[in-house]
Parts: sequence; C-alpha cells; structure tokens
Amino acid sequence: MAVWGERLAGVRGVLLDISGVLFDSCEGGGVPIPGSVEAVARLKQSQLKVRFCTNESQKSRGKLVGLLQRLGFDISEGEVTSPAPAACQILKERGLRPHLLVHDDILSEFDKIDTSNPNCVLIADAGDAFSYKNMNKAFQVLMELENPVLISLGKGRYYKETLGLMLDVGAYMKALEYACGVEAEVVGKPSPEFFKNALQVLGVEAHQSLLNFL
Amino acid sequence: MAVWGERLAGVRGVLLDISGVLFDSCEGGGVPIPGSVEAVARLKQSQLKVRFCTNESQKSRGKLVGLLQRLGFDISEGEVTSPAPAACQILKERGLRPHLLVHDDILSEFDKIDTSNPNCVLIADAGDAFSYKNMNKAFQVLMELENPVLISLGKGRYYKETLGLMLDVGAYMKALEYACGVEAEVVGKPSPEFFKNALQVLGVEAHQSLLNFL
Repeated sequence: MAVWGERLAGVRGVLLDISGVLFDSCEGGGVPIPGSVEAVARLKQSQLKVRFCTNESQKSRGKLVGLLQRLGFDISEGEVTSPAPAACQILKERGLRPHLLVHDDILSEFDKIDTSNPNCVLIADAGDAFSYKNMNKAFQVLMELENPVLISLGKGRYYKETLGLMLDVGAYMKALEYACGVEAEVVGKPSPEFFKNALQVLGVEAHQSLLNFL
Repeated sequence: MAVWGERLAGVRGVLLDISGVLFDSCEGGGVPIPGSVEAVARLKQSQLKVRFCTNESQKSRGKLVGLLQRLGFDISEGEVTSPAPAACQILKERGLRPHLLVHDDILSEFDKIDTSNPNCVLIADAGDAFSYKNMNKAFQVLMELENPVLISLGKGRYYKETLGLMLDVGAYMKALEYACGVEAEVVGKPSPEFFKNALQVLGVEAHQSLLNFL
C-alpha cells in the first residue's frame, strides 16, 4: 500500500480502457469483469477525474454506452473518447473523403462526412464485413489513388470475446499496407495524440494521470 | 539481337510463369496474352527444355492445365511446378497436419494429407473463402499451438484479372503473421527451393536457365 501511495501522489486523473478492462464483449452483449462496476463507481466518487478511452469500433459511442449502462456502469457518452470522432476531425481538416470499411453499427458516426469520389480508405474493426470482396474493394481504391492514404481506427492484433480471441483491425491494416505498399495512419490507441486529446478534455497533464489499459 | 545472342549462349532451359505471362485469368476462364501461345510452341520446338512454374493456387494443376489447353497452349500437367504438391511433401516430411484455408478447387491436392487435429495452418489464394470467419478460425488454430507454424503458398501482393487487380495470398499471410506474431514459411515463388526443384526436374543448372516471370 505504501508503494501505491507513493505512485498515486500527484495523480489527478485516470484514463480507463473499456473492452477487456471493464467488460468482455460477447455475441449480443457483454459480461462485466468482476469488480469493475464497483471500481468505476468508487473512482467517480473520489477526487480523481475519470475518462474512458476505447478503440471499440464495432459500436457507436451511443450503443457502447447504452450497453455499459445496462451492465451497471455509471458512464455517459460525453465521458468516452473513441477513434471515430477523432477520425472525422482529421478527415475534415485534411479534405479527405473516405471509402469506409467499417462495421454497419458505426456508419452513423460518419453521417456528416463526404464519402463521394473517395481519396482515402478508412478501416475499423469491421468483423464479418472484412469479406474478401470488401477488402478487395478497399485495396482497389487505394491502388487507384496517386497518394494513397489509409487510416486505421486502432491497430490491435486481436481482442477477447467470451467465445475466444478474435482478429482485430490491425491484421487487416497490415494486409492492406503490404498489398499497397503504404503505411497506415493509426487513429486511436496507441497513438499519443489520442491519449493527449482525452487528457485535454479532463484538463489533466500526462504526469498527473494514470492509465489502466489492456 | 547480338546482345540476346550473348545472353542466350549456354542457356539450356526456360522456366515460364503462367498467370500474367501466358494468360490473364477472368471469371470463368482466361484470355491468352497476345503471342504467348505461339511463343510456347516455338520454345517447345527448339532445343530448349521448358517447364512452367506457377503460384496459381485457386485451381488444381489438372484444372489449370485443362484451361490452358482450351486456350490453345501445348502444355501437360507433368510440365507444371506448382506450390500445392511441394507443400504436401513438406507436410509429410515434417508430420504436419494442416488446417487448410484454401480455395475449394485445390482441396483435392490435399486428399492424401491428414488434416485431423491440426498442428499448423496452410493458406493459399482462397479468394472469397478469405472471409472473416475463416480467417478468424485460422488465427485461433495458430494461437492455440505451442509452436505455431504458418505455411503460405506464395506471398504475392496482388494479381491481375481482366476486371482489375485482386488481393493475393500475401496480404492475408501478413495479417496472420501480425496477429499471431509468427513468420510464415513460403512455399512457391519466390522461394529458391521452388525454382531449384523445377530446374532439377528439367535436369538443368541455374546458370543454364532463363526465367520469364512477372
């Protein structure tokens, strides 16, 4: 406890991962990791500022928060930093019109993005939508661009579901990188910008924060 | 011509690629590349020994040769070196029982291979069979092995069909390599063993041979 006391001295904010830290997802829902509902409640009752950072890109923030609330977590949409909104900001700033290879459930996050005549490809954890046909289309779009831009929401190798380990977006990012000879731009963990943005919202400096991530 | 004459001095054998060199494949068949039918005929009438080397792994050798014959090529199954038979030899030598992620049309090449209780994964250009579900299964098999072995029939980035460029097995090999933290063993081009084997069948040394490949 003394060691923890020293480590926590000066800590003002906590960034918490969601999938695999708060809960394990499974077909149609999820299961809280024992103790996590109580841990979040205690953190939020403390003096510490709390924010949730996730690379979850199979669900919109709204759907993810709805699920967490049903599982008993005290959490609201405004407390979550996720890659899709961060990506939308980048797309707008750089005039990029993405060909989207994403899960249907996060398409709504890109409602206000121009996707006509694409000049980049954006991929996220698309699950079953990672068909050969869809991957080939993304590949062809990239190969037709003079300056191919590939944006990946995260670069995870795999994640855990109650049924077992599942391939994550990083594997498909590598496939397209190799086929097209490009390097993807990663939005989300572990990009430093992603964490900085979350801390900025909290108003906490990096040295005053604690991260709890898989 | 003088330069070619010098280059060809001492050449006794020719290795020819098939897809993209003799013909471009397309849905349901293929189109000969202009002049290639005649070029093969002339080579076979010459003093040179000819062998065909292909990474084609969407069709068995029998089906591929049948197609080429219909397109007008003078070619027989025994003249073709392809990765599936080479892989079968490796599997038998090392007591490997593969989980197969391959196109249905080459499953017959593995008829005599024990695929029960897999202790490796073998992938080839599986086309539409590269679904998320099938990729995830291959990934899970690898992750459950103490010493994961991934064998890939070729490592091509893409190939050309009449309709456009298509993702090749190399992209999916990279996806599994990244997700599982393994390095694939490549059987087929550009593995030196593959070319050596083809030359051995011809009875020609490497310095006496000419390669015509994409």
